Amino acid sequence: MPELFAVHTPPEAWRLFSARFQPTVRAETISTYQALGRVLAEDLYAPHDLPTFPRSTVDGYAVAAADTYGASPSLPAYLEVVGEVGMGQAADLRLAEGQAALVHTGGMIPPDADAVVMVEHTQQVDPSTIEVYRPVAVGQNVIQVGEDIRQGELVLPAGHRLRPQDIGGLVALGIVRVPVAVRPRVAILSQGDEVVPPEQFPGPGQVRDINSYTLAALAQEAGALPITYPIVPDRLEALQEAAGRALAEADVLVMSAGSSVSARDMTAQVVEGLGRPGILVHGLSIKPGKPTIIALCDGKPVFGLPGNPVSAMVIFRLFVTPTIYRLLGTTPPDRPRVRARMARNVASTTGREDYVQVRLEERRGELWAVPVLGKSNLIYTLVRSQGTVKIDLDSNGVAEGEWVTVEL
Amino acid sequence: MPELFAVHTPPEAWRLFSARFQPTVRAETISTYQALGRVLAEDLYAPHDLPTFPRSTVDGYAVAAADTYGASPSLPAYLEVVGEVGMGQAADLRLAEGQAALVHTGGMIPPDADAVVMVEHTQQVDPSTIEVYRPVAVGQNVIQVGEDIRQGELVLPAGHRLRPQDIGGLVALGIVRVPVAVRPRVAILSQGDEVVPPEQFPGPGQVRDINSYTLAALAQEAGALPITYPIVPDRLEALQEAAGRALAEADVLVMSAGSSVSARDMTAQVVEGLGRPGILVHGLSIKPGKPTIIALCDGKPVFGLPGNPVSAMVIFRLFVTPTIYRLLGTTPPDRPRVRARMARNVASTTGREDYVQVRLEERRGELWAVPVLGKSNLIYTLVRSQGTVKIDLDSNGVAEGEWVTVEL
Repeated sequence: MPELFAVHTPPEAWRLFSARFQPTVRAETISTYQALGRVLAEDLYAPHDLPTFPRSTVDGYAVAAADTYGASPSLPAYLEVVGEVGMGQAADLRLAEGQAALVHTGGMIPPDADAVVMVEHTQQVDPSTIEVYRPVAVGQNVIQVGEDIRQGELVLPAGHRLRPQDIGGLVALGIVRVPVAVRPRVAILSQGDEVVPPEQFPGPGQVRDINSYTLAALAQEAGALPITYPIVPDRLEALQEAAGRALAEADVLVMSAGSSVSARDMTAQVVEGLGRPGILVHGLSIKPGKPTIIALCDGKPVFGLPGNPVSAMVIFRLFVTPTIYRLLGTTPPDRPRVRARMARNVASTTGREDYVQVRLEERRGELWAVPVLGKSNLIYTLVRSQGTVKIDLDSNGVAEGEWVTVEL
Repeated sequence: MPELFAVHTPPEAWRLFSARFQPTVRAETISTYQALGRVLAEDLYAPHDLPTFPRSTVDGYAVAAADTYGASPSLPAYLEVVGEVGMGQAADLRLAEGQAALVHTGGMIPPDADAVVMVEHTQQVDPSTIEVYRPVAVGQNVIQVGEDIRQGELVLPAGHRLRPQDIGGLVALGIVRVPVAVRPRVAILSQGDEVVPPEQFPGPGQVRDINSYTLAALAQEAGALPITYPIVPDRLEALQEAAGRALAEADVLVMSAGSSVSARDMTAQVVEGLGRPGILVHGLSIKPGKPTIIALCDGKPVFGLPGNPVSAMVIFRLFVTPTIYRLLGTTPPDRPRVRARMARNVASTTGREDYVQVRLEERRGELWAVPVLGKSNLIYTLVRSQGTVKIDLDSNGVAEGEWVTVEL
């Protein structure tokens, strides 16, 4: 098997690829109500102040603060109550010196008032008079116009992934439609004479297609629209035809090669024919996932992943997911991580990244990462695992009891 | 304002509610291909062994391991190559002593072979003869029948939230339809004479509806189907009618009260009329979120949240999200957390849980949690924050420089 390309480390491979892949983000405008998890395509600015009027933060009486100065339980201030501001009503009543208006939490403050006395610090003397037992400062218990956000202020930047509170911040400003990044279309092509659809019972020598579905799920998680295709047999013309069509329909093409050497060689040949510059990386110093192809074909990223389902998922997370984020104009979201102690020695090789699947176990109050055994990266090693431990390029392994970071 | 109920701590409130709310999980059967993120409603067992035949993990020659014992570069074993097992083909050729068959990665092992020699450890002498330089042990480079998972073994338990690799594990076994928990329907009712739809420019005293959209987004994140309704004015009959209809259509009712005291009292009155036993908790020792109502009305959970958007979100995450998980028969997923040092003193009160919104800043290689300022829980304190620090019931605050856990 001829090695046409030098094996690269994963960081080298990403640098080589990402230096050449700098896409512009495509935008579409959608309802803010449907935008949870989508990525903003433009910086958004506040069209007006929020709130638009001064609001009370308590139930009480809107007053001029000066009218309460020196008030105490033994020497209360007496104020005349001249009205009530209804919820959702303009506070258009005027207050003279020594006058107050009943307001509710969230209600508008009349123009002559500059503070609110909490109802708990007052007592009603007669229908139109209250005693105030504590002084209030100017602005106390009031939210000023623009205190939440000011007109023209940056609401959220391009590249931001919308959370529930962001939806709230947008609708509070009347921004009911938002420009978001179009979900990239990721074509996923499973290949192999031995591969049959999951609905079919595999005959001797045959296996069900796993990669179409695990990789589609990973693409969906990353914010892309996966497109799957019928399984392609290991014939050059069939693969050329299917790959060319899939790439035309999508922004990214992911091929999971058949598992034989000849099938992998065929994938490389097909990728080279898809466009310029073609293959940038062929072979990674990583376990699992060595026989990976990373290419750029007429501006579109093309990945040739190993046929092994575990390798295919590891490589997808390392290279295709960040590619999707780049097309969305965003950065990776935070993923949950925990610190744990490795439950047994795990050997690696300097110059190679290893990804070890682990279960988590609590032992005497400490968290331990137990490697999930199973040779050759069986899919159930992933199903049984709760997280992944990365063993760095420059490490030759992790000793039992050593602290590691587990990405869940 | 009469206090009919004692204020409860959040853990007490959850115990009171959850002891009485033990729903059975409703199941539906859907395509496994569409099941990412859904929660399994039943334990699933493997319908057959995986793999269904012994497979090679390398490209090489299927052999009887005994034929290679003692082989070395200086004294290779000579084997006769009697055929090739094609990918996706039954390995029906028979091997006599001293015979081998060419196999590819993932290919089937012939019945007389019990190991595979990697092609790198062989050399072709003539078209039908190879030299083997290293011995192999029985089972080496072979995945045995059932080594990934055995027939009858538990695949995944009820309550498990399906990840990409789980989809892969299921389709590998031909499980293309799965029983999952029905998404609970969560009715969300915003109330308040001052509240207008986001499309409308708020007049003096009016504010746009935020809670319908933030709470719907939180419900969606938790795995529920949110249902929103037109804003209800602060009139008893209107609220009774709207709440009764919404509860009939949903599994959970979430009301966000108007922000005035009278509106909150009205919510309590309406909830009491919705069914038995009615209100379980009225008032929480928590900041923000004190005026919370937790009720069970003829078997359905009803929550009266504060009108303030930040309080409403905090209380939703603490009580409604776990209620949704209970209806789904699952446990909370891991959320990303980081450790950081608090950037300023934050006071609290013993006997009260405080939730403080923070930004994260890196200073001299350390992560610091900077509280987002802003009185009265403005929505933009949440928009500007990256996470939440919980100050426990028994703490009276966090000092500057103290290490805290930030939930992102």
